[in-house]
Amino acid sequence: MASVAPDRCERTLARSLVAETLGTGLLLAAVVGSGIMAENLTDDGAVQLLCNTLATGATLFVIILLFAPISGAHFNPAAGLAYVFAQVAGAIAGVWLAHAMFGEAVFALGVKPRAGAAQWLSEAVATFGLVLTILGTANRSREAIASAVALYIVAAYWFTASTSFANPAVTLARSLTPTFAGIAPMDAPAFMAAQFIGALAALTCSYAVLRQPD
Amino acid sequence: MASVAPDRCERTLARSLVAETLGTGLLLAAVVGSGIMAENLTDDGAVQLLCNTLATGATLFVIILLFAPISGAHFNPAAGLAYVFAQVAGAIAGVWLAHAMFGEAVFALGVKPRAGAAQWLSEAVATFGLVLTILGTANRSREAIASAVALYIVAAYWFTASTSFANPAVTLARSLTPTFAGIAPMDAPAFMAAQFIGALAALTCSYAVLRQPD
Amino acid sequence: MASVAPDRCERTLARSLVAETLGTGLLLAAVVGSGIMAENLTDDGAVQLLCNTLATGATLFVIILLFAPISGAHFNPAAGLAYVFAQVAGAIAGVWLAHAMFGEAVFALGVKPRAGAAQWLSEAVATFGLVLTILGTANRSREAIASAVALYIVAAYWFTASTSFANPAVTLARSLTPTFAGIAPMDAPAFMAAQFIGALAALTCSYAVLRQPD
Amino acid sequence: MASVAPDRCERTLARSLVAETLGTGLLLAAVVGSGIMAENLTDDGAVQLLCNTLATGATLFVIILLFAPISGAHFNPAAGLAYVFAQVAGAIAGVWLAHAMFGEAVFALGVKPRAGAAQWLSEAVATFGLVLTILGTANRSREAIASAVALYIVAAYWFTASTSFANPAVTLARSLTPTFAGIAPMDAPAFMAAQFIGALAALTCSYAVLRQPD
Repeated sequence: MASVAPDRCERTLARSLVAETLGTGLLLAAVVGSGIMAENLTDDGAVQLLCNTLATGATLFVIILLFAPISGAHFNPAAGLAYVFAQVAGAIAGVWLAHAMFGEAVFALGVKPRAGAAQWLSEAVATFGLVLTILGTANRSREAIASAVALYIVAAYWFTASTSFANPAVTLARSLTPTFAGIAPMDAPAFMAAQFIGALAALTCSYAVLRQPD
Repeated sequence: MASVAPDRCERTLARSLVAETLGTGLLLAAVVGSGIMAENLTDDGAVQLLCNTLATGATLFVIILLFAPISGAHFNPAAGLAYVFAQVAGAIAGVWLAHAMFGEAVFALGVKPRAGAAQWLSEAVATFGLVLTILGTANRSREAIASAVALYIVAAYWFTASTSFANPAVTLARSLTPTFAGIAPMDAPAFMAAQFIGALAALTCSYAVLRQPD
Repeated sequence: MASVAPDRCERTLARSLVAETLGTGLLLAAVVGSGIMAENLTDDGAVQLLCNTLATGATLFVIILLFAPISGAHFNPAAGLAYVFAQVAGAIAGVWLAHAMFGEAVFALGVKPRAGAAQWLSEAVATFGLVLTILGTANRSREAIASAVALYIVAAYWFTASTSFANPAVTLARSLTPTFAGIAPMDAPAFMAAQFIGALAALTCSYAVLRQPD
Repeated sequence: MASVAPDRCERTLARSLVAETLGTGLLLAAVVGSGIMAENLTDDGAVQLLCNTLATGATLFVIILLFAPISGAHFNPAAGLAYVFAQVAGAIAGVWLAHAMFGEAVFALGVKPRAGAAQWLSEAVATFGLVLTILGTANRSREAIASAVALYIVAAYWFTASTSFANPAVTLARSLTPTFAGIAPMDAPAFMAAQFIGALAALTCSYAVLRQPD
């Protein structure tokens, strides 16, 4: 029996890492790929973001439903640092996969400047709301969690000036694409800092103010 | 024991007030922010309203799911006057947050004229339907309530000439933005009056006609 | 006791009639109102129909969830003839309400020609699918029924050449609007005939072929 | 008793074949019909694909909910080869029905070239994700499966360069339409090969890596 438990443990950790890598990879393939598709098909900026929003929200619902029972479906260092290497690796692979699927150069750097106080405030607010949504639905059904997180991001793509990256691993990976969803690498660290501030604020708010009285 | 109950009571009231403020704030940030984003990205009025609709509906689903167990997730004086100050404060803060996230002047007044019999009828009908939806789903699961309220507003944004403010606190706060979702301050009181008439009609209809026989 | 039952019966019938009238009225207000709003805001025909689709689908979800426990939420003579007068009255009132909310002349006739074999085939197919959806989800939860019917109509607005009226009471009422969602009165009877043929085909298919073996 | 079982068996098989034919037929009518409608109404390529996406996703939700208890709601040889003839027959009938509903020539061939490594990678990835979604939600409620599959395809229409055919029977049938959703017949076999490779990869990944430890 003693020899079984470690093995199961390892297999479970391995499965979790695969799940976090695959899920974050699919998420980035969707974010970047749908941005390329949208830019190819229309010049209307709102329609482009609408298509990008739809693909991102739908993908989030699916990957949360699929991978929650395996790894918890985090896909985001701001929601727990345990899987950060798997998430970053998956995210970068997802960007490259999107490039390959659309016949673009696989390796590239982001070019879109995204900086300034308004952008950073947007990222802090976006991540605050995302982490609040995750903490506030933790006891609900998996379908409710998946719907809430997906719809939160659908909304936040539109109500923040930064289109809600809200995820440090996603931000890092999006600094590797010159397409619609990209960010200039030099602008990425400030985004990540703002995201951690937003996540911290949500944790504080949730545990200090909103949690059920004992 | 006697000293615990009041404390829990206060903490519960405090948590409810925070929940109503946060929820209404997020709602207004979404309504106003997505309107600014949409106006920045396209000149097509229908696409603008579509984006505004999507962000509003998605946010409503999320905030109802999140805050229903804490405060009941009203966010609307027409659905119960208990939290009116928290709702107004949250709503105004949400408008200002949206302005800040998009780098607009934080303090401003609405400029869009919204008046006349057709607009007032629209607000009465919009609020009638919203309150009917709230009352008619009271015994359903939280997910069903959140879906129904969100989808009702999604529809009502389109089938009323006023785009369904349907909420006096929201109306007041939207008189403080000159952007897509704004309303001229002088037009706000008539909107609120029409909303209370619609809410009253829904209460009457629901309790006198539709309620289950005893 | 004997005197209670009839009273409850009458109250239940009255409540059902109010529910069918209100529900069909809201549905038509949404169909016609969102069509007017969309035509006012864009010249892109696909965006117009997209907006009309969204409002119709969202409204269907809400009214089915709201009125199913009261009247069964039919809103359609093709799904049961019991409430046909309430449905027609509600549908016409809904069209007039939409006109009033948008400041249009309340009384009017449809002008859009919708005729020919392709249109009639479309209506038969649309109603076939709608009735199949209703029959096939009868044992599911109310939320599942509401989602399925709403999403069926969302799809059918797009995959039929007639944009899926699929409802004789709705067709009659839409012959009273010269706006986006209207139909010329002389074209309405053939639509209704096609709808009944489609409904009959679905009933036959469902009971003869698809029903569970005893 | 012995004479009842075979009869029930036959009836159940017949019902399954009808369900797979009807479901795949409705799916193709939706895919092709909404493509024709979208091309008729707008010149904006992104809006066209958005409409096509909406109709396809909504139809998938409905047919999975309807036919899952009868045949398992496969509609796709990549998800099990048992019903391949019914699926192909239904798919072709659906294409022809869409042509008839829009007054187009019923019999035709696809003309849109879809070939090259990027397209084939797209189909392999699209089918990989679809089969992973199907396997990963097998133990969830029917509503969750229907939502996950529909939303996966909604996303994949946008994040793959091929708009995710992800289904050999669908690919074959879409080689019979010269409209928006079509594919040139000579390009179909490579799509199908890529789809089977993607399906096989998903099966391997799911059983070797992701399955629950015993």
